[in-house]
Amino acid sequence: MERRFERELESLKTSLIKMGSVVEDNVNEAVRALLSGQVDLAQQVIAADGRVNALEIEIDNAVIDLLALQQPVASDLRFIIAAQKINNDLERIGDHAVNIAESVPILSNIGNQELLLDIPRMCSIALEMLKDALDGFIMLDTGLARKVLGQDDVIDELNRKMTNQVIAQLRDGKQTIECGLDLIRVSRNLERVADLATNIAEEVIFYTQARVVKHHAEELKKRND
Amino acid sequence: MERRFERELESLKTSLIKMGSVVEDNVNEAVRALLSGQVDLAQQVIAADGRVNALEIEIDNAVIDLLALQQPVASDLRFIIAAQKINNDLERIGDHAVNIAESVPILSNIGNQELLLDIPRMCSIALEMLKDALDGFIMLDTGLARKVLGQDDVIDELNRKMTNQVIAQLRDGKQTIECGLDLIRVSRNLERVADLATNIAEEVIFYTQARVVKHHAEELKKRND
Repeated sequence: MERRFERELESLKTSLIKMGSVVEDNVNEAVRALLSGQVDLAQQVIAADGRVNALEIEIDNAVIDLLALQQPVASDLRFIIAAQKINNDLERIGDHAVNIAESVPILSNIGNQELLLDIPRMCSIALEMLKDALDGFIMLDTGLARKVLGQDDVIDELNRKMTNQVIAQLRDGKQTIECGLDLIRVSRNLERVADLATNIAEEVIFYTQARVVKHHAEELKKRND
Repeated sequence: MERRFERELESLKTSLIKMGSVVEDNVNEAVRALLSGQVDLAQQVIAADGRVNALEIEIDNAVIDLLALQQPVASDLRFIIAAQKINNDLERIGDHAVNIAESVPILSNIGNQELLLDIPRMCSIALEMLKDALDGFIMLDTGLARKVLGQDDVIDELNRKMTNQVIAQLRDGKQTIECGLDLIRVSRNLERVADLATNIAEEVIFYTQARVVKHHAEELKKRND
């Protein structure tokens, strides 16, 4: 029985890693479609979200089975609850990949790549945060998780900067209203991916240190504003 | 022991009702601040989010204690897992109230109330959906929960209409870029409140009928698009 429980926990971890890798790919491909103006690639990303939704339900059911059949306590219980929340966060990251992909048709008309501003940089920071958060979860490395919490301000600032630059582009008539709105939308969606990576990092710290850091970072941020 | 468990489940339910009522108030007050241009009321809504975050952590801890100490199975387990997810959804609705409140300073300069278009109507539909979802949870009424699922399309359509109308206002120079962006932002945040009410309704159905309707509604919607 004990060994079977260990195997099931390991399998839950593997499913989350798989799910993490699928949503990371989807965000990456959505932004690649955006930067290269490939509407067909964007459609593939939108279609791939079905896989993410199916994985979410699969992991959710595994969590409920584990809780019902194994009745875990202490550290195992915390691990399972963290896994369930990370599962939900990953599914939401998948939704943001879809949102970004949905902006590709409009933004494929943008012509000048320079008008996309900091999108590639925001994408690489957000995906690095996601990777660090998931690696932190796999290796139980709170150092990595704390690194993620520290980067959230960077991406918030980039999002603010992007929005202001797009407003300036709109004022100067360098951007159509539709493209401007979609650029702001993509920037916000990348910022949300980073927020969710931050949530995951908080779950990792909760699991490893058994204390809730959630909202503490927010409080800290408010004081810094 | 059994009686204590019943009491703890009842107390979890009461906490969720309290949390639901706080976030409902916050959305309502944020939109009231918007419609009346009261920046100070908007600031109160932003400050009130601390209470929501504290309640979320309190309920999350109660869930973990219940799982660890009572090791529930079957229907009780499903109830507790549903409660945990509803808790998370409610906290996110609280965040959307903050987002709306943050748009009040810019939109208080809008002058002509008519330019706010369908905001009051979207707010009342979204809050009705939230109320029905929570009532469905309290009374285990899947009829109410299914009513919520049916209304999500209405608010999606209103959001699309709002966005197109604001783009038209921007083209005609009837709206400043800042006000236009914030109007679209408020509309989107109300649409997200409705999405989260839909999530809650899905949890109610999951709990009462022990089957996952999640994503099924999405699939259905895609086919209808």
